[in-house]
Amino acid sequence: MKGQVTETPDDGLTTRQRRNRPLVIVHTGDGKGKSTAAFGLALRGWNQGWPIGVFQFVKSAKWRIGEQSALEALADVHDTTGKGGPIEWHKMGSGWSWSRKTGSEEDHQAAAAEGWAEIKRRLAQQTHTLYVLDEFTYPINWGWIDVDDVVATLTERPGHQHVIITGRRCDPKIIEIADLVTEMTKIVHPFDHGQKGQRGIEW
Amino acid sequence: MKGQVTETPDDGLTTRQRRNRPLVIVHTGDGKGKSTAAFGLALRGWNQGWPIGVFQFVKSAKWRIGEQSALEALADVHDTTGKGGPIEWHKMGSGWSWSRKTGSEEDHQAAAAEGWAEIKRRLAQQTHTLYVLDEFTYPINWGWIDVDDVVATLTERPGHQHVIITGRRCDPKIIEIADLVTEMTKIVHPFDHGQKGQRGIEW
Repeated sequence: MKGQVTETPDDGLTTRQRRNRPLVIVHTGDGKGKSTAAFGLALRGWNQGWPIGVFQFVKSAKWRIGEQSALEALADVHDTTGKGGPIEWHKMGSGWSWSRKTGSEEDHQAAAAEGWAEIKRRLAQQTHTLYVLDEFTYPINWGWIDVDDVVATLTERPGHQHVIITGRRCDPKIIEIADLVTEMTKIVHPFDHGQKGQRGIEW
Repeated sequence: MKGQVTETPDDGLTTRQRRNRPLVIVHTGDGKGKSTAAFGLALRGWNQGWPIGVFQFVKSAKWRIGEQSALEALADVHDTTGKGGPIEWHKMGSGWSWSRKTGSEEDHQAAAAEGWAEIKRRLAQQTHTLYVLDEFTYPINWGWIDVDDVVATLTERPGHQHVIITGRRCDPKIIEIADLVTEMTKIVHPFDHGQKGQRGIEW
């Protein structure tokens, strides 16, 4: 019946298949916690031994330093003890597969497109089990990356690969194909009262 | 002028004092990511070398295993290399300061009250720089912990201690004294389509 919650969907999948279905997860909205929650999910994936790839689409000197350092420490734990999974962290302008040019908007656009091309290659090769595409909504919204290509790539990705996309104003075409979308909404924020960003909280 | 954003508040604090003001942070709402974002913030605190205390108020066999394992691995990194900060993880029914009784609702209530009493001692002693009070809204909403005591304790806590509270339906008295409140709202959730919780995503 329409509107009724179907507890066991008629999708031809077993409970186990549904349980293990790879997910597209979106964290959007104007509030805090979109990326932070994505990195929190990476902790769970690490503990499962998953190969994790973080792709940071908005270049910043300091915003992700804390998460990057902590996840790189967990990657070291994996490399030295075998505990957890391997983690790679790539950011625009500094990774091996990313443009190092930082001058103009055209350079940023090229770097974003190059980053997305690399992610497509990795999805095709099933390199990671969890992809964090941090602040990926922005280059899409700026027209630097084709949203239809993103939708087709995610929809057709092989195997069992989870993808988390963070950023404000996620394109409705991506929301449409996502399995889980959470909106983070600001209720009270210290910046409203003149509070400045601070070490350990904002980065 | 009322309603106007005041960029520099008339609170007698210097920019540096405001920048370093200890925060009460609340992650509430019915969506995912409340606790996950709190543990993501813990990564930033760890990287700053902060002593971190996680206090898990809803007992669960598996929900926090991933985060707990990863944060304990980071605690080991600190203990063996000095990198990052120390992390303690306490959960209801298993930590040294928590009741091990698990039978009745009265036992759970006593364990929650005992946990809060321990947190109060630590706040008074300034044991940690960051406290994650995970799912703390529930024992408050169930009347097991007095919200006025929580408000008074947080308001009067000494030194420079950040406190993150997670859970649905946060009491308005806590929202009132919080510096940063984010509401996580579900837009699309795989459980809506019969998707079951899965390893690495839900725990």
